[in-house]
Amino acid sequence: METDFVDWLVGRIPPDPRLEVPPGDDAAVLRPPALRRTVVTVDMLTEGVDFVLGAGCPPEAVGHKALGVSLSDLAAMGARPEAAFVAVCLPRAGGDAIARGLFAGIEPLARRHGVVLAGGDTNAWDGPLVASVTALGSVAPGQAWRRDGARPGDAIVVTGRFGGSLLGRHLGFEPRCREAQAIAAGFSVHAAIDVSDGLSLDLARLLAASGCGGIVRLADVPIHADAVRMSGLPGDGRTPLDHALGDGEDFELVLTMPPDAARAVVAAAGGQSLDLPVTIIGEVTATPGLVAEDAGGGRRPLAPRGFVHAFDA
Amino acid sequence: METDFVDWLVGRIPPDPRLEVPPGDDAAVLRPPALRRTVVTVDMLTEGVDFVLGAGCPPEAVGHKALGVSLSDLAAMGARPEAAFVAVCLPRAGGDAIARGLFAGIEPLARRHGVVLAGGDTNAWDGPLVASVTALGSVAPGQAWRRDGARPGDAIVVTGRFGGSLLGRHLGFEPRCREAQAIAAGFSVHAAIDVSDGLSLDLARLLAASGCGGIVRLADVPIHADAVRMSGLPGDGRTPLDHALGDGEDFELVLTMPPDAARAVVAAAGGQSLDLPVTIIGEVTATPGLVAEDAGGGRRPLAPRGFVHAFDA
Repeated sequence: METDFVDWLVGRIPPDPRLEVPPGDDAAVLRPPALRRTVVTVDMLTEGVDFVLGAGCPPEAVGHKALGVSLSDLAAMGARPEAAFVAVCLPRAGGDAIARGLFAGIEPLARRHGVVLAGGDTNAWDGPLVASVTALGSVAPGQAWRRDGARPGDAIVVTGRFGGSLLGRHLGFEPRCREAQAIAAGFSVHAAIDVSDGLSLDLARLLAASGCGGIVRLADVPIHADAVRMSGLPGDGRTPLDHALGDGEDFELVLTMPPDAARAVVAAAGGQSLDLPVTIIGEVTATPGLVAEDAGGGRRPLAPRGFVHAFDA
Repeated sequence: METDFVDWLVGRIPPDPRLEVPPGDDAAVLRPPALRRTVVTVDMLTEGVDFVLGAGCPPEAVGHKALGVSLSDLAAMGARPEAAFVAVCLPRAGGDAIARGLFAGIEPLARRHGVVLAGGDTNAWDGPLVASVTALGSVAPGQAWRRDGARPGDAIVVTGRFGGSLLGRHLGFEPRCREAQAIAAGFSVHAAIDVSDGLSLDLARLLAASGCGGIVRLADVPIHADAVRMSGLPGDGRTPLDHALGDGEDFELVLTMPPDAARAVVAAAGGQSLDLPVTIIGEVTATPGLVAEDAGGGRRPLAPRGFVHAFDA
């Protein structure tokens, strides 16, 4: 059997007023929202690196993750999701079932976040599954959250809890698009990033881009129950905090905000528009580098840890 | 050595007023042109299917092709290219040299067509090279060329010459963006598609999308010298016309236009803004299906031929 995954996928999507030319042509034509900027991100997932197809990871989970990581990038810009494009390279053997599974994971997530699936590209080969999602969002001019805007004295704020994502959240996470928009609508944010590679690594990237450093109060880092579970596995040898600081794929947000705004957003957390924990874990400093402060007030350098895509020269 | 290909790539691109937030953040922020629609296309190329890295196909050629196929899709919509995003999965062995080669192929093509390289995603794995380019263009509201707009009586018009692209043009082609804009600015176009999979196959897709059929006058199909060369290779066994109709990857445009407009664009071809052959090869009919007319006026059904990405159920 031969089919075109993207045609099939978009044929299942209801018409959307944002589309002037619907999927199925050489390209999609979108009506960009008036007086908004266009925010664009692309993420490519590959079998064996970002997921391993199998009992614990059906194609549905890959589809969810492929769209989710791009939506998480939009959240990290404070953007409203608008449209997504899905490019896949399917293994020839079983490609049709994989394609349908991918869609079953993509479609509900797109619907929840108001994303129109506007097109893509279908390929087949004798290699492993590759899925690349381009997501478009919108934001008011000058209002996008950047990673280079942190200022000394800002509070470092995080959504959710960290660590142990490999136990399942690295596939099933919910991108923080709604929470980002709720925060953007009500509070001042100086800088933001989402945690894909590791809390300490992504925070260090934000601080370096801003020409700043930061102090992280270790006792305040919100640790996920999965980090505790992983730490307890035979041979793990790492503390729950280690997992929280370095595991990555939490897809939570790290924000730097004026301290007053940070306290206000923490007070608002748990409410209807921001229904998840928000925690102040430290503050931005003028001195470059990341510093860990323990419960007794002792300080030591904190080496950023996380996942890096490495290849040889 | 480890590097981030996309950071490296975009660091070599001059600042562009279309970018509100430059590459290097979680997503790019673009200023969409006022009063224009946004045209979006994505194409994924994979080693072994779309190219085979080697002496005849260095990474530079892959980079050129990866951006070129997406720009060709924008041309097929009559759109002006604006921005591109490059997602790659690099083989771990030699990935750095491949990345630099890709860029050396992408950058000059982007520059020639006024495309800002605005971001992307870098990955590494133990598999073959995968490159996916998302291209954004713009077009006036309601002016995008669609493939479903052909009308009976339209002339079928093509740019350039066809066949034998495997001898090199499938890698080194120039997307017809400028020509598309010159035609869009001066002539009425009812429908358009670019020839990626095969002249007869892509034309058949356009006609089917429009609910029409078409007659192709075989003697008028412009045959590339490469089609003649391939036909002459030992064991080829196909005529130059066979190659022209079915080889694909010509990345020329097929347009349907009112006959007067078609004659006018043919007369303009060869001039400064439209410096390539433009040929009327047939006409759109109300009866579905593709018909070949030979030099003597005889007619027979023309089976669409070309490349199809197949996979198993």
